[in-house]
Amino acid sequence: MSRSSNKKQENNKIDWQLPAISTSASAHNINRELFVLTYGALVAQLCKDYESDDEVNKCLDTMGYNIGIRLVEDFLANSGIKKCRSYSETVDIIAKVAFKMYLGITPTLIGDNVGGNEFSLILEKNPLVEFIEELPTGRSSLSYCNLLSGVIRGALEMIHLPADVTFIQDRLKGDDVTEIGITFLRKIEEKKTKRNK
Amino acid sequence: MSRSSNKKQENNKIDWQLPAISTSASAHNINRELFVLTYGALVAQLCKDYESDDEVNKCLDTMGYNIGIRLVEDFLANSGIKKCRSYSETVDIIAKVAFKMYLGITPTLIGDNVGGNEFSLILEKNPLVEFIEELPTGRSSLSYCNLLSGVIRGALEMIHLPADVTFIQDRLKGDDVTEIGITFLRKIEEKKTKRNK
Repeated sequence: MSRSSNKKQENNKIDWQLPAISTSASAHNINRELFVLTYGALVAQLCKDYESDDEVNKCLDTMGYNIGIRLVEDFLANSGIKKCRSYSETVDIIAKVAFKMYLGITPTLIGDNVGGNEFSLILEKNPLVEFIEELPTGRSSLSYCNLLSGVIRGALEMIHLPADVTFIQDRLKGDDVTEIGITFLRKIEEKKTKRNK
Repeated sequence: MSRSSNKKQENNKIDWQLPAISTSASAHNINRELFVLTYGALVAQLCKDYESDDEVNKCLDTMGYNIGIRLVEDFLANSGIKKCRSYSETVDIIAKVAFKMYLGITPTLIGDNVGGNEFSLILEKNPLVEFIEELPTGRSSLSYCNLLSGVIRGALEMIHLPADVTFIQDRLKGDDVTEIGITFLRKIEEKKTKRNK
């Protein structure tokens, strides 16, 4: 085989290599930009469907809820997490494991006092709003990421921890941070580990 | 500090570790299940909005198109791909780089003959339909993944390669495989490399 025919073969068949910093999706993950843009299309469609921001927010919350009640199975199967002993532990897992696993971010947890039932997740970064600077005109009450709070609500309900989950602050609305509030609706039985010590 | 107080501290502050097979999302990627379920919510919403499958398909295609014309920038920036010299090379990159990067799959390319303008991508796996076995009742003409063909169409148009992109076969409709057809609408100037050799 001559050198030139080898070269021709190389030209015809190029194996495209991914860049050194791999951005390729895997069995578990897909590219974030595609998700963020698809989510944007969903919100835009709902804004087309419903005149009132409240209705859009409610719809996003319900969609999120329905996603959450399914996603929790995936979460339990892949995270290896078995049981939480307290609300604070549960919210800690949501922040450090669930958010990391699903969105690649780790919100800061506020209110992780033992015995309390109100917590907040502060999202310094929020991939969902990566491409948007502000809310669309005339949509000042839109809770753009309301799907997320619905997902958390749905997932918690499936593990028998009903909770109110809402966006308390939102950078898209001019707030300094984005904050998701989680208020558990009834007490779970906490192990009396302290008493036994 | 006594041993017991150390232990108490450990109990209060647990650093949750991700499982050995990391399913965590990263700066570039997010969890696939969340995307697939969100996409399902989008399709369900459109089915609620439009009676006819054709309208839903058209809407998904348009949404995909609008995503594609934005996603192509991200693709060019992160893939390091500069210029394609032929249709076959272009489709090869869509299959081996773009699909891998965005959905974590590599479709099989059919029709990669030099000079032709009709190609097919065969999707053995399709993450978008991971949780669905069949189309919803009364939705037999729904092209569930039509967003994908729209994305490809939009991205190609942005690099001055207008094309018809449609689902030719669909497993959800009972076909043996899922096949996306790409027909380029006009010739790009191919370098006469062969003639110069």
